[in-house]
Amino acid sequence: MRIETLSTFPAMFDSIMGSSIMRRAQEKGIVDFTAYDLRNWTHDRHRTTDDDPYGGGQGLVMKCEPIFEAYDEIAASGGEKPYTILLSPTGEPFSEALATELSERDRLLFVCGHYEGVDERVYTLADKTISIGDYVLTSGELASMVVIDAVVRKIEGVLGDEAGAIDESFYDGLLEYPQYTRPASFRGMEVPAVLLSGNHAAVERWRREQSLERTSRLRPDLLATANLDESDRAFLGSLSGGVETGRF
Amino acid sequence: MRIETLSTFPAMFDSIMGSSIMRRAQEKGIVDFTAYDLRNWTHDRHRTTDDDPYGGGQGLVMKCEPIFEAYDEIAASGGEKPYTILLSPTGEPFSEALATELSERDRLLFVCGHYEGVDERVYTLADKTISIGDYVLTSGELASMVVIDAVVRKIEGVLGDEAGAIDESFYDGLLEYPQYTRPASFRGMEVPAVLLSGNHAAVERWRREQSLERTSRLRPDLLATANLDESDRAFLGSLSGGVETGRF
Repeated sequence: MRIETLSTFPAMFDSIMGSSIMRRAQEKGIVDFTAYDLRNWTHDRHRTTDDDPYGGGQGLVMKCEPIFEAYDEIAASGGEKPYTILLSPTGEPFSEALATELSERDRLLFVCGHYEGVDERVYTLADKTISIGDYVLTSGELASMVVIDAVVRKIEGVLGDEAGAIDESFYDGLLEYPQYTRPASFRGMEVPAVLLSGNHAAVERWRREQSLERTSRLRPDLLATANLDESDRAFLGSLSGGVETGRF
Repeated sequence: MRIETLSTFPAMFDSIMGSSIMRRAQEKGIVDFTAYDLRNWTHDRHRTTDDDPYGGGQGLVMKCEPIFEAYDEIAASGGEKPYTILLSPTGEPFSEALATELSERDRLLFVCGHYEGVDERVYTLADKTISIGDYVLTSGELASMVVIDAVVRKIEGVLGDEAGAIDESFYDGLLEYPQYTRPASFRGMEVPAVLLSGNHAAVERWRREQSLERTSRLRPDLLATANLDESDRAFLGSLSGGVETGRF
């Protein structure tokens, strides 16, 4: 997959590119990453990318011209037109399902504005506008990095172990069960006995019930879209009396 | 504010620290940032911070010992105990309200695991467990950076212009209105005439109505908690017939 970004602080991407997952994806030749500097498409001495908002107000708005000019040049390079993503609080809430959808594309271009505002006309370039959450960030680069991290780990062959990607939070739309590793006893806190039992079926059942209990307690909104079977529903029905939560 | 992070890839924080907002906050002496390397609290030759999960399964789980040992040492340094945050998909969904709450603390410590799993006992150290969204990331560092960016911009004195911070998306719990800057006409797309009118009251009304229309169309879930007055409600009631959206 080709991943490209267009922003005024391309150096911000250095950190994610050095992270284990992106390094691995690039070394394996699965991802080819380029961070473009939007200022290369400005023509004034100050390399201006933003200007005052029409109608007044605080903050600066990112201008159309450098972004459209950059887009034209980037899109014309290489073969296929990039699937273009803008990050904005007004976008579609980012999710695992959307990460999977994006991981199947051949070429992604992230246009990163600052969150204070981007000229509305820039959104005509977007194939998809995404919001990573209901909060305001200074840096569109950071929001793009979040999406890139979540997408790249879903591309086949990136994670050493394919199972890893699904054996995790939000598999079946539930929160993940508690995890433990050695030592079995630490500062008076014990690993649940079932995990030391060697009884695989009992471990699986415990984990599923922990996921269900935790989702029902912490994020009941997720249950509406979770992938549940009959025994899951029976277990959830039994929860009203309270269960051992597995959290200290 | 003192902000500290504990993770296995402290260099990942270099990028956010170089971003305009964090640089400004540090130069003004408002934020004092330290990224600790968790591996400094390991004692084996391979500086191991994770291990196989009890009960079996794919992926590795972050171990208790280095994290607790690091926590003890970091918390004992300096005056006040840090308000400790873990990032996890099971956490409280991050929001502007939570960002504001955190921006009023004197000392924040972010413990960054990888998302595959952290030994459940580590959560006993957390004053708050936060999720930045319903998706899986490889890097807890990235999730922490998102929270840090959103929090720091809310600390008084960080943004040059105090108004900037509220004149934005999620003010009053609504999505932001469309923004435009020069030129007034670009590739056949015109800035809405009202924004060029100089009529301040009309501009304000148009912006409010755009925020309401956009929120009602793209994120109707936000209306339940938005701060609305009677004229907002009347406008929303009139929307069933459809309005000019301001988006091309």
